[in-house]
Amino acid sequence: MAQNKQSWIEVAPNSDFSIHNLPYGIFEAKSRGPRAGVAIGDYILDLYAVARLGLLDDLNIPSNVFQQPVLNDFIALGKPIWTSLRARLTELLLNDNNELQPHAEGVLVDRLSATMHLPVNVGDYTDFYSSKEHATNVGIMFRGVENALMPNWKHIPVGYHGRASSIIVSGTPVHRPKGQTMPAGSDTPVFGPCRLLDFELETAFIVGKNTQLGESIPIEEAEDAIFGMVLFNDWSARDIQKWEYVPLGPFLGKSFASSMSPWIVTIDALDPFRIENYPQDVPVLPYLESPVNKRFDVNLEVALKPKGGVEKVISRSNFKYMYWNMPQQLAHHTVNGCNVKVGDMCGSGTISGTTPDSFGSMLELTWRGEKPIEMPDGTTRKFIADYDTVIMRGFAEKDGIRVGFGEVSGEVLPALV
Amino acid sequence: MAQNKQSWIEVAPNSDFSIHNLPYGIFEAKSRGPRAGVAIGDYILDLYAVARLGLLDDLNIPSNVFQQPVLNDFIALGKPIWTSLRARLTELLLNDNNELQPHAEGVLVDRLSATMHLPVNVGDYTDFYSSKEHATNVGIMFRGVENALMPNWKHIPVGYHGRASSIIVSGTPVHRPKGQTMPAGSDTPVFGPCRLLDFELETAFIVGKNTQLGESIPIEEAEDAIFGMVLFNDWSARDIQKWEYVPLGPFLGKSFASSMSPWIVTIDALDPFRIENYPQDVPVLPYLESPVNKRFDVNLEVALKPKGGVEKVISRSNFKYMYWNMPQQLAHHTVNGCNVKVGDMCGSGTISGTTPDSFGSMLELTWRGEKPIEMPDGTTRKFIADYDTVIMRGFAEKDGIRVGFGEVSGEVLPALV
Repeated sequence: MAQNKQSWIEVAPNSDFSIHNLPYGIFEAKSRGPRAGVAIGDYILDLYAVARLGLLDDLNIPSNVFQQPVLNDFIALGKPIWTSLRARLTELLLNDNNELQPHAEGVLVDRLSATMHLPVNVGDYTDFYSSKEHATNVGIMFRGVENALMPNWKHIPVGYHGRASSIIVSGTPVHRPKGQTMPAGSDTPVFGPCRLLDFELETAFIVGKNTQLGESIPIEEAEDAIFGMVLFNDWSARDIQKWEYVPLGPFLGKSFASSMSPWIVTIDALDPFRIENYPQDVPVLPYLESPVNKRFDVNLEVALKPKGGVEKVISRSNFKYMYWNMPQQLAHHTVNGCNVKVGDMCGSGTISGTTPDSFGSMLELTWRGEKPIEMPDGTTRKFIADYDTVIMRGFAEKDGIRVGFGEVSGEVLPALV
Repeated sequence: MAQNKQSWIEVAPNSDFSIHNLPYGIFEAKSRGPRAGVAIGDYILDLYAVARLGLLDDLNIPSNVFQQPVLNDFIALGKPIWTSLRARLTELLLNDNNELQPHAEGVLVDRLSATMHLPVNVGDYTDFYSSKEHATNVGIMFRGVENALMPNWKHIPVGYHGRASSIIVSGTPVHRPKGQTMPAGSDTPVFGPCRLLDFELETAFIVGKNTQLGESIPIEEAEDAIFGMVLFNDWSARDIQKWEYVPLGPFLGKSFASSMSPWIVTIDALDPFRIENYPQDVPVLPYLESPVNKRFDVNLEVALKPKGGVEKVISRSNFKYMYWNMPQQLAHHTVNGCNVKVGDMCGSGTISGTTPDSFGSMLELTWRGEKPIEMPDGTTRKFIADYDTVIMRGFAEKDGIRVGFGEVSGEVLPALV
């Protein structure tokens, strides 16, 4: 049982950002930044300011890595540095420590008044498809019950390349995309604003290591090559996707935007929340045989909020529903020699649980629009309406220790003319 | 009819790099670079050296854009600068000009002794699928005659996201990838080196403009947002691809490597080789209606060369076989608001002609291995063997004016243990 630590910074018991978390982000505040910070309670710890006080000198971290608009150079320092910095920051923040506390005013920033930026430069973005329930649900709707789960699905963490340029940080509004679709029963496609706009409840991990072309990351080493995780909304235009995706996969149905939460929660912070691996019922090839306890129990939820209205939680899911875990995904991704770079992102794929209230997309929650969701204001939703805000939250909790992700939110604006 | 110009630099009549071409690349030579250069005959014109002589001062180009290891900052200056620099370089290189010639020794580098680098930092890489013959051939083999050309194919320039990190420059060897495949007739996948290694004869264009998320590039403006073109070998592991690609598209079957030629041939240089657009026999939506003459007549060929052996040209194709042209591809790519960045690459997809000797992949040339290719040394090839080098070449020629791409080559090395 992990020991519940207290900081000299007051942290509400239900805060996602306890001293056990210490997630990394890029913030901008009056006369600071964009630069690296760590969230704690309602504050951001300015890492560059801490380094300038000399309090991190023993770690031999070049202090300029904290003064940049992305975390890539810091992350590239590698796992031993991530772990030693985490240990040192924990020490500095504990309530019996007097090294940092006298400088509180100079190193702490009000979190809610800061602007958060995309925390990494994403070189390549890959999206997996690793929730069995999601793959089954979508398979039934797009291809029928007979072909729902493809023959390869339990042998391969199926994934595909996504668009890196359109990854945006939480809070950035998203215009409804326009595109080409084929109306049911027609043989002539039409052009216009997407009519079936959806979210996908995902997490994503940030790669923390550069590899050379030809190099593979063995599954035993894969977790140490992962810096941390974020919440991820893989916005999807279902009507565009349906018309375009055979045979080469989703393209414009996805590439208009993907939203990430601003705080990267490290694997070290998630360590207390490990659970047994998902019981895979088909044997996998040796390169995909996972070490034990590579799954994490993280509560996830999606809320929908109309403009000026009251939000409604429309899904409660959990990261534990992933059939394939992150080391399996990364080992598979690199087994062909594909090189990865620090800052690359790998989305989990939509995380749907086993019950209808735990599905991770409108497509599944309303079953293709057949079961609309009733909103508190009396309106209904089959898909996402203009001026709706989609909010995803996630946290792990055990033995009184809470480690959360904050949220990723995004408002849908009408299509541009 | 374009006028055939002569330079004070001797250029062989069959050189790809006549004064009409002036393609851009990043070279490294003794005490120079990596930095920007322009190929002419057997030389490279060192653009930074030319700028330092003050000979480009009237163009107001920041000279440091030529002293960087990628062309992105130069390309970002935009089409008017590309065009004015091309005009000025043409002037400086013409045989009646005496401004640059006295400085020849300081600005010219022996091209064959220089090392060429990847010319751009590729943010995102997209691969299209725009040759009707290729799509039909592959469709027949993977899905049968009935489903060969999907219903969307003549309405959409079908494309998908590829892997940017594994794009390499010509001359870089490629290790045979390893991966998971499903042997015919089996229900248990196996792991090992790819057995059906293939090339794909493609070109790719380099995006020359940054757009904002939500912004679309209208088809009338699309060509001016393209900096230039290269030859592109989209290496493919057919056995890995076949097992993984349904339903989300190719992934590890492609991501182990894609090779590009080092010299970017500008659209301005290709202007004399315009031909009428491909006669599309199905009406397209207005956003895809192409302006006239957006197709180019560029001869393409693929040669195969065993180690220490003699090369054999195994395919002669042409860029004109593209059903969808580049402005159609870029307009489609951005119609949903997907932002593009300078340096982004868009592959054409395999360019196959109408006759069996013009197909752009081994898969098609040998028809899935049923018709092996005989090599000069008496061996045969169904797919690519270890230590084979695949060489692609391309050039346009008209009225005695030749504008070529040079080549993209890559040797296949055995799978890493």
